[in-house]
Amino acid sequence: MKISELSERSGVPVATVKFYIREGMLPRGEALSTTRAEYGDEHLARLRLIAALADVRGLPLSRVRDILALVDAPDDDPIETLGRAVGALPPYVDGDRGDYPRARAAIAALGLTYDADFTAVAQLDEALRALEAAGLDASPAVLRRYGDAMRQVAAEEIAPVPYMERSEAVTYAVLGTALYEPLMLALRRLAHHHLLVEGAAADDSAS
Amino acid sequence: MKISELSERSGVPVATVKFYIREGMLPRGEALSTTRAEYGDEHLARLRLIAALADVRGLPLSRVRDILALVDAPDDDPIETLGRAVGALPPYVDGDRGDYPRARAAIAALGLTYDADFTAVAQLDEALRALEAAGLDASPAVLRRYGDAMRQVAAEEIAPVPYMERSEAVTYAVLGTALYEPLMLALRRLAHHHLLVEGAAADDSAS
Repeated sequence: MKISELSERSGVPVATVKFYIREGMLPRGEALSTTRAEYGDEHLARLRLIAALADVRGLPLSRVRDILALVDAPDDDPIETLGRAVGALPPYVDGDRGDYPRARAAIAALGLTYDADFTAVAQLDEALRALEAAGLDASPAVLRRYGDAMRQVAAEEIAPVPYMERSEAVTYAVLGTALYEPLMLALRRLAHHHLLVEGAAADDSAS
Repeated sequence: MKISELSERSGVPVATVKFYIREGMLPRGEALSTTRAEYGDEHLARLRLIAALADVRGLPLSRVRDILALVDAPDDDPIETLGRAVGALPPYVDGDRGDYPRARAAIAALGLTYDADFTAVAQLDEALRALEAAGLDASPAVLRRYGDAMRQVAAEEIAPVPYMERSEAVTYAVLGTALYEPLMLALRRLAHHHLLVEGAAADDSAS
């Protein structure tokens, strides 16, 4: 397809498509002449992925580039790959503090692995600090509520990984971390809404 | 305390404290003279809350103001309050499309409530669109994984609400929606990490 069709089908303006090519985020099309190039389905898929990360997840372009680089040239070590993927996702916290006492205590209480170099440790520490600042409960019982639910979800997410090709597993891990999060948060908000609506209906029928 | 001590204890620079006062986000201190004012613990708590929302959650200031307004003057209808709180949180999506076919199908599959005016419906639709663009599985079985986990979490979160004073319940609902999300996401990332580390250790001991 021509660049105009690629733009139309992806919903990304032609100027932006050209920008992504210049930035090395999207491969060049096959040159047909000095002014025309042919683009294929792999270009369309890549553009949709960039749009998903940049527009839906709202990631800054530098972070989208980090994630594409991981997908294109994954690290050999899956734990290292996960660490780099998580580091490319918000919240962007200062990950150089060396020790995270709030996170350390919570991780110990939940029986998880404390590794100060893994960015999610710093992210957990910040999340706990925010809860404390807002006067919200972050007692072990509350931590366990979220910890148990997330461990259950994570176990189901990781289950198919051993049956995947290496490159497929990396793409799944990197994109899955980024793109199932908005799904999960939207469903939590919808569950609150549903429970409130259901409760109000029960109150109405009781009165 | 003086403004300098308020700044020191909250970690918020004096100029920023003054900015929040001018913007109406933080009440003025009690005037002791034309140039000096006295601040109390309620100022400190408010500043920490603003910092939690602005810095830890990374919300734009206009959205922090929306959330503070909800806490200060909650709507009488809890469903309306939840809707406004969710609308102040990312992802910021176009909520005026009227109908959301992807979200509608997912909500029907999960037995939740479809209300196109509730922002999380548009957020779910966008999340599903991003998964589709990235070629990730959003089949009913996968939706159920996240939907069941979130419904369980939401039910536990809502359980104490009937026993709270109205203003306390609103604060809890608004801040809880915003501030337990980063906790939950950090714990999911840590669970992935833990399961990978555990799996690698099992592989090592088996070899």
